[in-house]
Amino acid sequence: MRLKDYIAEVMDFPKKGIAFKDITPVLQDPEAFQYAVSQITAYAKTLGVDMVASPEARGFLFGVPVALDLGAGFVPVRKPGKLPRPVETAYYELEYGTDSLCMHADGIKPGQKVLIVDDLLATGGTIAATIALVERLGGEVVGCAFLIELLGLPGRDVLKGYDTLALTTYDVSE
Amino acid sequence: MRLKDYIAEVMDFPKKGIAFKDITPVLQDPEAFQYAVSQITAYAKTLGVDMVASPEARGFLFGVPVALDLGAGFVPVRKPGKLPRPVETAYYELEYGTDSLCMHADGIKPGQKVLIVDDLLATGGTIAATIALVERLGGEVVGCAFLIELLGLPGRDVLKGYDTLALTTYDVSE
Repeated sequence: MRLKDYIAEVMDFPKKGIAFKDITPVLQDPEAFQYAVSQITAYAKTLGVDMVASPEARGFLFGVPVALDLGAGFVPVRKPGKLPRPVETAYYELEYGTDSLCMHADGIKPGQKVLIVDDLLATGGTIAATIALVERLGGEVVGCAFLIELLGLPGRDVLKGYDTLALTTYDVSE
Repeated sequence: MRLKDYIAEVMDFPKKGIAFKDITPVLQDPEAFQYAVSQITAYAKTLGVDMVASPEARGFLFGVPVALDLGAGFVPVRKPGKLPRPVETAYYELEYGTDSLCMHADGIKPGQKVLIVDDLLATGGTIAATIALVERLGGEVVGCAFLIELLGLPGRDVLKGYDTLALTTYDVSE
């Protein structure tokens, strides 16, 4: 199966000059969706994953079924104000200003092996924040998996030293 | 398994007087999470579901694995500005003002049988909007499934005439 056949490129979204990678056609097709999930699960099976962590909201779409298939737990990484109990917060740089992500302070237990799953690896900001949250809680990041990686952006540099899988790539360096 | 053992009640979140039902402990425990998903899947198996629709972000957590287990597709229902292609929009009432939800205009095909899944049925605003979106696109809502129903709020009235499952209930009418 060629996953790119199910990824729509939408020009000038969310702003001019960006060719947005729309993964909703993957979700819409049960075989394509199951294929993407099973590729990530196959990659993660040897890693001894205890917990899967994913940033909201698109990360949930892939992280949740991978967690269930692995028999692992799932911990959501959310924008500030969404999680009701005490949280850890990690900040990351945007083009202008900063943003932050939160995880329940008891979301990961010390020593747990954690797989991070998201739909897209671009500049790596949200993933760097997610890694920081997992490690601050004493978890070990054993792998990072993405449906899509954009080549030519600094995402991979952020993930140096971490085992990483991308199911498909787009070169955006031109 | 008693699902309520995995639901934390957090007082005064998101505002004073609300006892927020926190489902993150369900996600954290692989058996509890799989149990909740399999209960919804078992309910939906006889309904001939083509597509599962869920509002962001917590609805994704349960709607996605149910869709995959049923061999159905998944269509995300999102806040305005999140979906990159042409959308249908439905408005719903809040305590003060209105809010809206969107679905890609090609997210549901005419005649498709649709299961709606969300974590919580309370006032029913987001579910009414989700039903409106599915039906405007020509889909048939064959069932609605929730992890939690709050009794004493108008949620069930909104769902009159629709087949509905709630895995657990809390009476908040006092």
